[in-house]
Amino acid sequence: MKKILVLGAGLSSPALIRYLLQHAAEENWNVTVADQSPALAKKRIKRSRHASATGFSAEDQTTRKQLIAAHDLVISLLPPALHTLIAEDCIACGKHLITASYISAGMQQLDNAARKAGVLLLNECGLDPGIDHMSAMQLMDDIRSKSGKITSFKSFCGGLVSPEFDTNPWNYKFTWNPRNVILAGNATATYTENKRIRFIPYNRIFLQTEDVKVKGYGTFEAYANRDSNSYIKPYGLTSASTVLRGTLRRKGFCESWDHLIQLGLTDDTLIIQSSEHITWRELTEALLPPGTNSTEKKLCHLLGITPSGKAFKKLQWLGILSNEPVAIPRATPAAALQHLLQRKWKLEEGELDMIVMQHQISYTLKGKSHQIKSSLVVKGEDETYTAMSKTVGLPMAICAKLILKGAIRQYGVHMPTMADIYKPVLDELDQMGISFFEEKA
Amino acid sequence: MKKILVLGAGLSSPALIRYLLQHAAEENWNVTVADQSPALAKKRIKRSRHASATGFSAEDQTTRKQLIAAHDLVISLLPPALHTLIAEDCIACGKHLITASYISAGMQQLDNAARKAGVLLLNECGLDPGIDHMSAMQLMDDIRSKSGKITSFKSFCGGLVSPEFDTNPWNYKFTWNPRNVILAGNATATYTENKRIRFIPYNRIFLQTEDVKVKGYGTFEAYANRDSNSYIKPYGLTSASTVLRGTLRRKGFCESWDHLIQLGLTDDTLIIQSSEHITWRELTEALLPPGTNSTEKKLCHLLGITPSGKAFKKLQWLGILSNEPVAIPRATPAAALQHLLQRKWKLEEGELDMIVMQHQISYTLKGKSHQIKSSLVVKGEDETYTAMSKTVGLPMAICAKLILKGAIRQYGVHMPTMADIYKPVLDELDQMGISFFEEKA
Repeated sequence: MKKILVLGAGLSSPALIRYLLQHAAEENWNVTVADQSPALAKKRIKRSRHASATGFSAEDQTTRKQLIAAHDLVISLLPPALHTLIAEDCIACGKHLITASYISAGMQQLDNAARKAGVLLLNECGLDPGIDHMSAMQLMDDIRSKSGKITSFKSFCGGLVSPEFDTNPWNYKFTWNPRNVILAGNATATYTENKRIRFIPYNRIFLQTEDVKVKGYGTFEAYANRDSNSYIKPYGLTSASTVLRGTLRRKGFCESWDHLIQLGLTDDTLIIQSSEHITWRELTEALLPPGTNSTEKKLCHLLGITPSGKAFKKLQWLGILSNEPVAIPRATPAAALQHLLQRKWKLEEGELDMIVMQHQISYTLKGKSHQIKSSLVVKGEDETYTAMSKTVGLPMAICAKLILKGAIRQYGVHMPTMADIYKPVLDELDQMGISFFEEKA
Repeated sequence: MKKILVLGAGLSSPALIRYLLQHAAEENWNVTVADQSPALAKKRIKRSRHASATGFSAEDQTTRKQLIAAHDLVISLLPPALHTLIAEDCIACGKHLITASYISAGMQQLDNAARKAGVLLLNECGLDPGIDHMSAMQLMDDIRSKSGKITSFKSFCGGLVSPEFDTNPWNYKFTWNPRNVILAGNATATYTENKRIRFIPYNRIFLQTEDVKVKGYGTFEAYANRDSNSYIKPYGLTSASTVLRGTLRRKGFCESWDHLIQLGLTDDTLIIQSSEHITWRELTEALLPPGTNSTEKKLCHLLGITPSGKAFKKLQWLGILSNEPVAIPRATPAAALQHLLQRKWKLEEGELDMIVMQHQISYTLKGKSHQIKSSLVVKGEDETYTAMSKTVGLPMAICAKLILKGAIRQYGVHMPTMADIYKPVLDELDQMGISFFEEKA
């Protein structure tokens, strides 16, 4: 019997836990789900004979370590900042760890200790980061095995609302951490184009977009992620001319988001005194240059838009010109905006999400140029088994199985860029209907 | 004999130390100047019989406390972050403290302890903050004493180059901490206009300027400081319609500075890998949208300027299109820009600085409206006794004298908004030629 510990039973856990329970009998697993809320943990295990639920506080060092020591493998869905703590306990207890988070500097520092302890700390095993690494590396390793040379790598991913439920003028609903969406791009972005390093300051990130077509799903637009160049080394792209990673939105979203940036609504430093006593209209007016014109006129003038156009209607629809109260105390503009958007961009019960990923790879082979366009589209099953929960959770679940079977024999801090990990994971995802499809570029 | 301890012998210390030494015999003072560099401390005391110099490290708790315990009053010119530490020692040893820094949250928390210990922690006693508080409060207390009601308060201050040495197209040279200049306005600004709270996002702070005329010195332009509204309470301005504080520059500076912001050169988060190997032209090109046009053309297009105009010539003069190397490793754009500007905007030996301050106050008295425009212009004597050093250091020196004479009988955390402080300080500054003059507004 192998014992698996899942830390965290939040929104990203259902598909992961379902997989573990479905395979528990066959694989002889026992699964413990631990969460701050024991009730939530209990709900996730659905009276399974192979699982138990327990309360858990990451701060409680003694029980944390006891819990980890009593299992063979840990899957952590806790906030990224806690992963180093968990990893340290895993090393001390000689247990493997899987996360879906980026390898932090603190995590990387544990590499030596983990190797010495014979422990695998496998990170970046969700969707993005996760499936993106696996699928991109599979495509590129295949090209390289034929002696092809990669000249351009572009990769895009977005968490969106499924088209049937795409019912608002922004063509967007929250399917993931809203705060990350509000603060996205809040720093200069870096990428490489035509062998040149390029930067995009925050004030232009949502203007300098590119169109991304996905067969059967229409055209999206992509804005640049913070640091595309950090992928050059792990992906072996030092000789590629172009390396760009971006986030996908429906067309028109980015221009309107830039309007919110220009207005100042994404600033997260200014604390608005008495924000609970002002209306959205007052906040918008306060952010505009003074003058006797109406708030509407000044807003249109600032953004260079017309009151009859789509862009203005989108802002109006959000309610930033309404007499609704901002309603939260000591809010920053970004916090106020998040509070508003969580109402306006809510994925309602019964509505489904959709994740879209696309790799665009150019390469030369025997003197000829080639392009690959490989896309993944996954829709949610329902509001629990969302596309996000599936694409983040299932790769981790499959990795857990591989590790416990002894199919992955690596120690130290890793991400799933190696074939012995990505191949079986992508194969099994494919069997579950999470499949990339290629188009002629 | 009273013993005064001056912590820090840097650029802001010379006028302060000179004053203390000039008055030492008459006042029966002994002055200790302590600095990380004992040589610098020694240089400042110029073999005075009334002074000694010593090395000093703020981190060395034991000697720090011994030094403070051996004096009657401490004047700290250390970096603001260290002032709470010094203040704690002052409370423990029962010694008064003077600083020119803003009252931090940590300093404010010491109020009770200082009162109990009978210790005065007098902060914000330099120029801005410092002389601004004193002169504004004197004007406003005078108006209020006649039952006038203040309706509008605007106050501006800038450290500039003296007109005789104003020889570059930006009409600006560094006379103070360059890093603060580079990062100025790097957050949403807040002020009040016509009874309405107003915000200015960073992307508009240098565009939403206002002209400020100073008789005999021409027209300046002012951009809004970060938080004008924090002055409402200490200045008793709750019933004023307008409260604005701003920073002065020569006309045309702000528009060009906004160009640098738009280009992305004031970002301090992005670390440029291999920045020591790239040229300024390459950095500027990297920050522009990609495309086959020349860097010059793209820059002009982005900013909406022409290659023959003044704005473009100012950017060109800085060298951001040159093949000069950026020359520093792991630089942020802001760090690279600072490094460049410290060469281009250097106040050369023999050149003088100038500080300019102006208060604009509107009030009603017996049913009639009145305006006051009160200005201060101070030029440096030479590169040691700069206008900055005089206007920052002398108010602190005079406060020290008042405290040691027993003329200020306050305990706890204070700033110089009370008449028993500002009146004697402003009177003595006036005798020294640091005098406000009023104009008909």
